[in-house]
Amino acid sequence: MYLRILQRHIRRGRLHVHLPDGVYSFGDGEPEAHWFIRDRGTLVRILLDPGLELGETYMNGGWHAGDGGLAPLLEILLRNFSRFGGKISRWFAPLWRLARQWNRIGRSYRNVARHYDLDEWLFRHFLDRDLQYSCAYFATPGMSLEDAQRAKCRHLMGKLLLEPGQRVLDIGSGWGGLALFLAEHAGVHVTGLTLSREQLRVATDRARERGLLGRVEFLLADYREHTGHYDRIVSVGMFEHVGAPYHRRFMQRVSELLLPDGVAVVHTIGRSGPPTATNAWIHRHIFPGGYIPALSELSRALEPESLMICDLESLRLHYAFTLEEWLRRFLACRDAVAARMGERFCRMWEFYLAVCAAAFRWSDLLVFQLQLAHHHQVVPITRDYLYRPVAVSAGERGRRSAPG
Amino acid sequence: MYLRILQRHIRRGRLHVHLPDGVYSFGDGEPEAHWFIRDRGTLVRILLDPGLELGETYMNGGWHAGDGGLAPLLEILLRNFSRFGGKISRWFAPLWRLARQWNRIGRSYRNVARHYDLDEWLFRHFLDRDLQYSCAYFATPGMSLEDAQRAKCRHLMGKLLLEPGQRVLDIGSGWGGLALFLAEHAGVHVTGLTLSREQLRVATDRARERGLLGRVEFLLADYREHTGHYDRIVSVGMFEHVGAPYHRRFMQRVSELLLPDGVAVVHTIGRSGPPTATNAWIHRHIFPGGYIPALSELSRALEPESLMICDLESLRLHYAFTLEEWLRRFLACRDAVAARMGERFCRMWEFYLAVCAAAFRWSDLLVFQLQLAHHHQVVPITRDYLYRPVAVSAGERGRRSAPG
Repeated sequence: MYLRILQRHIRRGRLHVHLPDGVYSFGDGEPEAHWFIRDRGTLVRILLDPGLELGETYMNGGWHAGDGGLAPLLEILLRNFSRFGGKISRWFAPLWRLARQWNRIGRSYRNVARHYDLDEWLFRHFLDRDLQYSCAYFATPGMSLEDAQRAKCRHLMGKLLLEPGQRVLDIGSGWGGLALFLAEHAGVHVTGLTLSREQLRVATDRARERGLLGRVEFLLADYREHTGHYDRIVSVGMFEHVGAPYHRRFMQRVSELLLPDGVAVVHTIGRSGPPTATNAWIHRHIFPGGYIPALSELSRALEPESLMICDLESLRLHYAFTLEEWLRRFLACRDAVAARMGERFCRMWEFYLAVCAAAFRWSDLLVFQLQLAHHHQVVPITRDYLYRPVAVSAGERGRRSAPG
Repeated sequence: MYLRILQRHIRRGRLHVHLPDGVYSFGDGEPEAHWFIRDRGTLVRILLDPGLELGETYMNGGWHAGDGGLAPLLEILLRNFSRFGGKISRWFAPLWRLARQWNRIGRSYRNVARHYDLDEWLFRHFLDRDLQYSCAYFATPGMSLEDAQRAKCRHLMGKLLLEPGQRVLDIGSGWGGLALFLAEHAGVHVTGLTLSREQLRVATDRARERGLLGRVEFLLADYREHTGHYDRIVSVGMFEHVGAPYHRRFMQRVSELLLPDGVAVVHTIGRSGPPTATNAWIHRHIFPGGYIPALSELSRALEPESLMICDLESLRLHYAFTLEEWLRRFLACRDAVAARMGERFCRMWEFYLAVCAAAFRWSDLLVFQLQLAHHHQVVPITRDYLYRPVAVSAGERGRRSAPG
């Protein structure tokens, strides 16, 4: 019966399912993938609740992929099953959302601790040297991850229209990479907010090492607690943690914290299709309280505020490239991670990176960069200023000129 | 009493109200405007229902502006009363929408006839030479309207990623300006749809004159009636006429008419704030059945379709510049228009252009350019291709190079 489900759904790509009693092949064309499953019970669990059980069973050693790794297997599963899963999860989305994303401040701290207070050691082993834990910007084909993360910072710096001496708020400052970049390259004063004690410690150490403590400060604070007024606000890879019940509140805080002539840039994972629930496995193991907004949700949260949408860039595939490189780096040091964090953690992390990479390639996931201002006069009326040729002298120095 | 309403609301700018019994001044600062009102009854009518009566009483000669023209007066009224009016109209928005925008195909033809079947002579007197009746793109400051309309066509051409020989559908082709431009500059075959017999006649004549009849055809057809498959779809200034009840249907048709590797660009007036009803006066006299969508409405209509948002440009102020120039040109030939169409028509048209210009400067109105595709691989992953320097040799020839 369950084999018939595979038969009915697999249309794109060729999948060979290896079960104890034999090999069953489905579909046609590219890619081709082998799926080694321990027993029929595991396959049944996956088919009954793929969103949760594909990851659960992988973590527990219930299956593994062929020599090509997880990517071609996940491609086949995602491309042939996404509609099916999407419909079911959409049905339950409103209920799930309320229960799971009721991210009061205390819970937000706990959610963040779960993921970001993990040993810094781990992140140093798969992120770029600057510890940028968000979608990079591959400005030119074949760019290294290091360069693409710097290009992301430069792209954001352009959209922020910074002037020296301005005060910038970075909501969700991570290990401080962007804040340090902006302070160094644009001569601004940056306040970074994080809920992770581990990130706070690392970011503050890095600011001290680079002699930037006078111009960059990091605080352990929630966006709802922090007060002040800023010329610029930037938030990268944080809105995904806000949760649907707090989307309005987040935009309200951005509007309140931003001075009348200010500019804000919000960089967040989004989906091009309709709202749907967070993947159950991701929610359980990786990002508790997280939620990926559709554009209709983002805009509904934004519209009651006096914030104008000055630009919306839709970064497609950049996160797939980023995650694929993270996975490659992670696999390169897999033995060391397994020795320190255990085999089950390793399998969890590998699946997390691989399934997210596949989702950014084959589903409707992308990254939205929203540029916001209180009125028409702040941001130039064409986007040319973002694309003026700059004299890029060896990576880091490619400082974008101020807009006209 | 009604003077106290003005006193309470006017905070920005200084307004002198001239009534038969004297002059009353309110507010402070810039701009300064004089408002000559025939009698107190007219002022009361306006205050009771400003959205409708400001225009009605102007058409009927109930008031006129001082030497500075309508612009400073409308600026003061819009900036000081927009919140108030916005709230009230939002309250009734859902009801109005259903009744007024139930644009079945037959009604759409009649709506269009009301506005666009007006004498071509009129449009020739205030539009640019190419008869582009939509927001221009002021690529550089101080550009002429003629150049800005061509720059708009080039900008759209860039976003459409055209290749010679492709089949392009232009939904709402007007007097044919964009279709002819694309056929001439990109070597594509364009089918333009309009519901206006007058536009069809003029556009077809122009295609014949330029020897393009083999590559451009114009049809009298509704987007719901037309069938076919196109490499590219473009729709400029048409979505505003679709009406909220048909937003989903429009996006569905775009998705169906677009080939799997296709690209679509939808250019529409939008609002940055929350959904609100069409202005009552505009609806009665200018655009029956029209509705300006908020981004949340646009995206909700789009999300169920298999169309990805590849880019969303928010063109702010460009339509203010366009309308201000249209108004200037209109006023330059006001006597001739009055002789042919009558004084009341003249006052209506003047108020229409002036109030829309003011709205694009001082309210949350803007123009959205949405670029859509069925999958990730069609549109380049950075927007550099739109901003590569081109050798612009005397206006028209500045053909943008194909993207990489």
